[in-house]
Amino acid sequence: MSRKGILFVISGPSGVGKGTLRGKLMETPCEDLIYSVSTTTRQPRLGEIEGRDYFFTDADTFKSLIASGELLEWAVVYNNYYGTPKKFVLDNLEKGTDVLLEIDIQGALKIKNVIPDGVFIFVLPPSVEELGKRLNARGKDSQLEIERRLACYDEEIAHLDKYDYMVVNDNILEAAEKIRAIITAERCRVRRMQ
Amino acid sequence: MSRKGILFVISGPSGVGKGTLRGKLMETPCEDLIYSVSTTTRQPRLGEIEGRDYFFTDADTFKSLIASGELLEWAVVYNNYYGTPKKFVLDNLEKGTDVLLEIDIQGALKIKNVIPDGVFIFVLPPSVEELGKRLNARGKDSQLEIERRLACYDEEIAHLDKYDYMVVNDNILEAAEKIRAIITAERCRVRRMQ
Repeated sequence: MSRKGILFVISGPSGVGKGTLRGKLMETPCEDLIYSVSTTTRQPRLGEIEGRDYFFTDADTFKSLIASGELLEWAVVYNNYYGTPKKFVLDNLEKGTDVLLEIDIQGALKIKNVIPDGVFIFVLPPSVEELGKRLNARGKDSQLEIERRLACYDEEIAHLDKYDYMVVNDNILEAAEKIRAIITAERCRVRRMQ
Repeated sequence: MSRKGILFVISGPSGVGKGTLRGKLMETPCEDLIYSVSTTTRQPRLGEIEGRDYFFTDADTFKSLIASGELLEWAVVYNNYYGTPKKFVLDNLEKGTDVLLEIDIQGALKIKNVIPDGVFIFVLPPSVEELGKRLNARGKDSQLEIERRLACYDEEIAHLDKYDYMVVNDNILEAAEKIRAIITAERCRVRRMQ
């Protein structure tokens, strides 16, 4: 029995640790799982590497990618563009390789419209207070920015019911193990077999 | 967020290694997972223990359990009665404990009618030839019995599409790990949260 590739989407509120979680997962990646690097106009954070964490680009280049239909989805998040290169994702799924995406909530919901049989995983903070602490500890956002992000939280969490799985990111290792389990389990699904 | 208990059903053709797999899983059981011991009129196999592997009973007692509605399902498999005690399963699910059942295909399909949101896992042999070898190696069935079991195989496998997951029991440790992953993943499902 063979099957098409499965799209796994890690998503959740800003500051919840999606990037760290994805980094932990890809340190020792699951077999036959490939990470789809997003394109963004935001500035690289400390330690982020071009082509591994993001393709960093400028607004004009980004707009030309939109215009030529090369993005599976794109969104403006906190004044920066983020997008998912289309060809890379679709080609891998077609040839049976599973693809991992790490993406904000707006983007995930757009992807779900295009690839409804993807696996959508919502990463939650242990609490909204803890999310505030993490955004503060990250030290990269102004107080105003942090307040704006926290204000979005209730609206973001309201989308939880559109996701397949939820994983609380309390302990990074445990959360990564749960995502690994979800990947293993989805690969055993009868309905995905051809 | 809280949830009801989840029923996990390990099922598959006779000789595929369901019992060994369940034994391996329960050696180091998942947290908050309880095994529902079935009742049977068949003779204990070497190493099987009353109350751990089965409740062994006689046909008259079994028939009285049927008559008093104390079984969630029951079936005659190769001239022996097998049944699932009802109260134990329903009480545990109600209080939020996950329950594991190991059961033949007829039984699993009946359980699915009663508890449709259970998680149904079909254990497959690597091949039908390998299944024949295992039935022979087990040395407990006559050649006629083995041929009868293998003849049922095509009919049994036709029920695969009624299951949620399939796990090939090629390597017992890997198969047990896949079932653990399925348990972990299902516990993260958004639709199971209340």
